[in-house]
Amino acid sequence: MQEDAGYRGPSLRIIKKHGLEVGDFISFVTKKGTYEGTLLPRYQYADDRHVVIKLRNGYNIGINVENIVDVKRKSKGAPPTFMTPPLPRFNPNLPKIAIISTGGTIASRVDYRTGAVHPALTASDLYASVPELAEHAFVEAEVLFSLYSENISPKHWEAMAGQVIKKIKDDYKGIVITHGTDTMGYTAAALSFALAGISIPVVLVGAQRSSDRPSSDASTNLAGAVRFASETDLSGVFLVMHSNPGDDELTVHLGTKVRKNHTSRRDAFSSVNSLPAAYIKNGDVKQIIPDLPKRESGGFQPRTHFEDKVGLIKFHPGADPEIIDFLAGKKYRGVVLEGTGLGHVSSAWFESIKKAISSGMTVCMTSQCLWGRTRMTVYNTGRDLLMMDVLPLQDILPETALVKLMWTLGNFREAEEIRSVMLRNIAMEFSPRSLLEHPAKS
Amino acid sequence: MQEDAGYRGPSLRIIKKHGLEVGDFISFVTKKGTYEGTLLPRYQYADDRHVVIKLRNGYNIGINVENIVDVKRKSKGAPPTFMTPPLPRFNPNLPKIAIISTGGTIASRVDYRTGAVHPALTASDLYASVPELAEHAFVEAEVLFSLYSENISPKHWEAMAGQVIKKIKDDYKGIVITHGTDTMGYTAAALSFALAGISIPVVLVGAQRSSDRPSSDASTNLAGAVRFASETDLSGVFLVMHSNPGDDELTVHLGTKVRKNHTSRRDAFSSVNSLPAAYIKNGDVKQIIPDLPKRESGGFQPRTHFEDKVGLIKFHPGADPEIIDFLAGKKYRGVVLEGTGLGHVSSAWFESIKKAISSGMTVCMTSQCLWGRTRMTVYNTGRDLLMMDVLPLQDILPETALVKLMWTLGNFREAEEIRSVMLRNIAMEFSPRSLLEHPAKS
Repeated sequence: MQEDAGYRGPSLRIIKKHGLEVGDFISFVTKKGTYEGTLLPRYQYADDRHVVIKLRNGYNIGINVENIVDVKRKSKGAPPTFMTPPLPRFNPNLPKIAIISTGGTIASRVDYRTGAVHPALTASDLYASVPELAEHAFVEAEVLFSLYSENISPKHWEAMAGQVIKKIKDDYKGIVITHGTDTMGYTAAALSFALAGISIPVVLVGAQRSSDRPSSDASTNLAGAVRFASETDLSGVFLVMHSNPGDDELTVHLGTKVRKNHTSRRDAFSSVNSLPAAYIKNGDVKQIIPDLPKRESGGFQPRTHFEDKVGLIKFHPGADPEIIDFLAGKKYRGVVLEGTGLGHVSSAWFESIKKAISSGMTVCMTSQCLWGRTRMTVYNTGRDLLMMDVLPLQDILPETALVKLMWTLGNFREAEEIRSVMLRNIAMEFSPRSLLEHPAKS
Repeated sequence: MQEDAGYRGPSLRIIKKHGLEVGDFISFVTKKGTYEGTLLPRYQYADDRHVVIKLRNGYNIGINVENIVDVKRKSKGAPPTFMTPPLPRFNPNLPKIAIISTGGTIASRVDYRTGAVHPALTASDLYASVPELAEHAFVEAEVLFSLYSENISPKHWEAMAGQVIKKIKDDYKGIVITHGTDTMGYTAAALSFALAGISIPVVLVGAQRSSDRPSSDASTNLAGAVRFASETDLSGVFLVMHSNPGDDELTVHLGTKVRKNHTSRRDAFSSVNSLPAAYIKNGDVKQIIPDLPKRESGGFQPRTHFEDKVGLIKFHPGADPEIIDFLAGKKYRGVVLEGTGLGHVSSAWFESIKKAISSGMTVCMTSQCLWGRTRMTVYNTGRDLLMMDVLPLQDILPETALVKLMWTLGNFREAEEIRSVMLRNIAMEFSPRSLLEHPAKS
């Protein structure tokens, strides 16, 4: 038994007494019944009175050591492994859809030795796991990265955009990108700008529960994304995830208006300051936003660069403006402020902001409220900031604003052009008032 | 006509032609009817085809200059001013409630010359404006500050806490603090920690529309806050604002669980990861969270210091960990990370975080999802961060976490005590699962 498996106190004593090791398949006879499964390690903050096993059905349970009557080791080590099912039949007459895997929970499996989730499945595994994909598309799958999404960076966005452009040349009718959910909203925004005007649909999709768990949302989300990419007449960058905790409806969000608003729920993603593009129920797509760009609408001129030297600063009481001076000193080319309310920061920040702008930094204002719209003409503070040439970014999400500023600084040179691009709608990042709703409220 | 009044093009021509000045009371005869009001200035981003007047009813309208048939100046300058109504009668037998004014829209009026909102009303003016206050409490009002809330800092929180403590000694039964809404959530959290265990209710209240506008929510909110402070048997720090866009229900939020989630709506504030404490409808209080602390519950030991050298950093793709090095170099004593999902940052940040912690900085993890709960034992990234002693702050709001860390570092010395205080519930900042809801979803 390794020390770092995390057992201590009474639970460690029972494990030592029976010579058990993590990964062993064990039968625990307790006062409440017999439980069989693979012994898992315990974590730092766990109590010392339970041993944890993974049952054959994939769930983990903790067994109170006080209830244990007998322990039998059924087999040593050799935990169950993930089996790749056979590939379904292809129908080459269906629309050709590429699944590009970048990692994350949707492409993960649980490590039965540690209980942790790892990016491990290949795109082919995904396809094999969801045989109904073959009914709606002629799917080809490839692995571009295998990354937790917190490790996705702007250079990965550039690679994804480049891969999509290749697939368009190869006559794919739609692209599905599987992605970890943590930063999937940022990537959706990045591809929306990099691929503005694209002629086909690009659909980001993820999962909140790994695909080898019974409660996984991976197959429903993936099947919905592929079917939407295959059958819709719309083009653009979208993100498809569960609409609610059930398994019966998916939401198609605009890539620039979507945010992960919950750590763990299947319906973690919401459209903010916009209606969703569409809902998918029983395979039927119901378009909600009218007049979205159609396939082959033309005008596709990809700009796939992103500038790294861009910051996102959330203002708060007591925040020292030295953070702005620091970014200016490090030659950051832009910064997005998450101001308060309609777009404010303390007047103590004015000098640093003025200096940063006069040194050539582009400074943009968004609201940490997330819902609603900056309006910097109502209070003196806002008007003072406008006079310094802080750019008011309407109802854009701060995260989308950051990505847009990275993109704008990566693809345009002249100050006047940068300003004008930041203030105008490139990929539906500013909503007309008719598309507003307030999902923070029921 | 001053140049900076903002008119240009056709709108400037008509103003010059008739010799009009901002502040003049003017009658515009148009093809659609006659409009009378005070001429207001235009803003930087306004078009050049409208003149704007403030009507007698308080609303501003823009008049298209193409429709103007005739212009008559009715009176020069001398815009309408705010009149202080007479004070209502006091009833000294009602519970004694203090209204402490700190500024913000609730204590503001619109400047009729510029159209802007200024903190201007005194607490007495407020009281005079809402005569029904006298029916429910014996109110005394005072002005502590007159600040836009983006200029409120931790030293103002200390002053507010000190003032509340004085009022308790003077036998007040409840305190109402009027406050700008921009940072009212931060202040509510700050007072929750500084005054943990307080024996009376302290109620923060603000307004989204200034109190001299017909659409103002100021009087409903203030009346509700005073009545709640006077009549409730609960103690603690609360925030009272509109429940919905109508004028018929108020919500009483816990001071540690509330956030401004909309830039402009009357119902901008929501409880996040908690039910609200109560609703107020037609003056009746309906308690939602059971078992809240009662008045005179004792154990009040105020700790009113806040440490300034604390940062709030939102992780995002491409974010450079040099920001952590910078804060460590500047001797910041703590930092709250807004990680992704369950509480993650890129592995590129690990070295800087480790160094910061070993230099003595307290590093805490929250989620930028806002809703849900950090869980750092699911993925390798989270477990790695736990091993570095990053503190996982459950379902706390990032803003509340920042305030709590400022407070903890301001009042406790020993590393082990700081860690233990940060991880334990001081003012209901961690919710039991039974109090969760997900207001981002309808």
